[in-house]
Amino acid sequence: MINKLAIIGIGLIGGSLARALRRAGHVQEIVGFGRNLNNLKLAVEMGVVDRAEVNLVAAIEDADMIVVAVPVGAMTEIFSQLAGRITRETIVTDVGSVKTSVVTMAREALGATEFSRFVPGHPIAGTEQSGVAASREDLFQNHQIILSPEPDTDPGAVETVRAMWEASGASVRMIDAQQHDIVLAASSHLPHVLAYALVDMLVRRDDHREIFDLAAGGFRDFTRIASSDPTMWRDICVANREPLLKLLQNFSDDLGEVMAAIEAGNGEWLMNTFERARHARETYVKPAPSDSPDSVE
Amino acid sequence: MINKLAIIGIGLIGGSLARALRRAGHVQEIVGFGRNLNNLKLAVEMGVVDRAEVNLVAAIEDADMIVVAVPVGAMTEIFSQLAGRITRETIVTDVGSVKTSVVTMAREALGATEFSRFVPGHPIAGTEQSGVAASREDLFQNHQIILSPEPDTDPGAVETVRAMWEASGASVRMIDAQQHDIVLAASSHLPHVLAYALVDMLVRRDDHREIFDLAAGGFRDFTRIASSDPTMWRDICVANREPLLKLLQNFSDDLGEVMAAIEAGNGEWLMNTFERARHARETYVKPAPSDSPDSVE
Repeated sequence: MINKLAIIGIGLIGGSLARALRRAGHVQEIVGFGRNLNNLKLAVEMGVVDRAEVNLVAAIEDADMIVVAVPVGAMTEIFSQLAGRITRETIVTDVGSVKTSVVTMAREALGATEFSRFVPGHPIAGTEQSGVAASREDLFQNHQIILSPEPDTDPGAVETVRAMWEASGASVRMIDAQQHDIVLAASSHLPHVLAYALVDMLVRRDDHREIFDLAAGGFRDFTRIASSDPTMWRDICVANREPLLKLLQNFSDDLGEVMAAIEAGNGEWLMNTFERARHARETYVKPAPSDSPDSVE
Repeated sequence: MINKLAIIGIGLIGGSLARALRRAGHVQEIVGFGRNLNNLKLAVEMGVVDRAEVNLVAAIEDADMIVVAVPVGAMTEIFSQLAGRITRETIVTDVGSVKTSVVTMAREALGATEFSRFVPGHPIAGTEQSGVAASREDLFQNHQIILSPEPDTDPGAVETVRAMWEASGASVRMIDAQQHDIVLAASSHLPHVLAYALVDMLVRRDDHREIFDLAAGGFRDFTRIASSDPTMWRDICVANREPLLKLLQNFSDDLGEVMAAIEAGNGEWLMNTFERARHARETYVKPAPSDSPDSVE
């Protein structure tokens, strides 16, 4: 049970966590901090937070749980402001889609004791929408949350953060930060970059109206993630540079092989590749849970 | 009104067309031709066709409408068998996802008068599933059908094919074969190749179980089309080689630029690109019609 929860950044994820914890009766008071006044106002009107603050120090006062839910690129500044203000009664966690760079930011900004109260986290849930208006109390239902505690992270803090996410309906897994970043670069960051790159390439063509007009459901689903928040994804690309670049290079090399096969009319190679991909997808990719929203990150 | 409809290939598209026309009362008798006996048997059991034939000549006897709904790679053989059997009472159309190569095949196999009764077509509808079991009577509802008549195609034949598709619930557009192939390479063929290539790349990694296990809805939707029929897509890649290769090269070049921007930490470039893509998608890509199945091609 959380007495006072401070959510730094009341967007899709921060707002949905607030709503899920409220529904679960897992929190007494929720204060939201943000910069976008319209969004903050909406968060109060929707009852997502009890109170909104544009002053970070006021927002976190007496909070026993602080959830940092801003884009990764804005986290350094937040950690700097939290430094010196994390007491033994406060636990801090984040929801960033990359973990090693967030851990580095937190380690540099916070004192050692403060850092031990910081539990790096990443909910594998979201939609292509953003802002508190898109938040939903069931966003984490049946979704996975990754926690990436460091060797010097306080085990009690980890358990408290785990309990919070479980109260939101999610299941929690421990994966170290480096492995997280490699796996998520493959399952999430690379597909987002490919979707953005494809749509951007097409819209720059003279015949883009006709292309989009003749696009059907396959294209719509393939490019859904290209409607995601550009700030968030710019930050992820910059923060997870190494794993993402490596995968982009692999993918680019593979595309070269596909092109060679098409050029050569090598139907057998194409057939084997497509068949292997289809089999993999049908074997490993879980179908959409009917009781859960489509999720992106 | 069609007296006898012969559908060559009772899969997702052929089966769905049969069901849609039956529901609309637009056809008297439907005969299905196919090679897969289990699928043919199912088509009869489901009531999709009145009769199944494994002999093409028997299937098309007295048919006033023949719909060729086999993968593009199997069409040459079908056209060869139709040659000499298309009377002035018969109209032939196809549902292939590429048009110039199908037109070439038909022109080479058929006599000039026969060719004038062939109306090249492509329904922009489908799902990642295949076979008559996946067919549905509302597959074409609110979807577009492209017809690509040649200068020597009989206008009356075009109108009869148009009427057939409109009876199935679709709307019909005329686009010439070459333009069709360029536009569809962009809106459909390229995304399919990218989805197959991505899933294939990932499944060959040692950590593929963890990658797929941590994939969320974004990945699921992005890769849905990688569950499509490999034979169909191999044929499309081979048949639409030139436009597809050109787009793959463009995309590969663009990926190089994305990689350079990530390497350089050029957040502004990434932000502009992602923002442009998001704006394009939200402006031009139609949301999923709630009364219509997800469609792929």
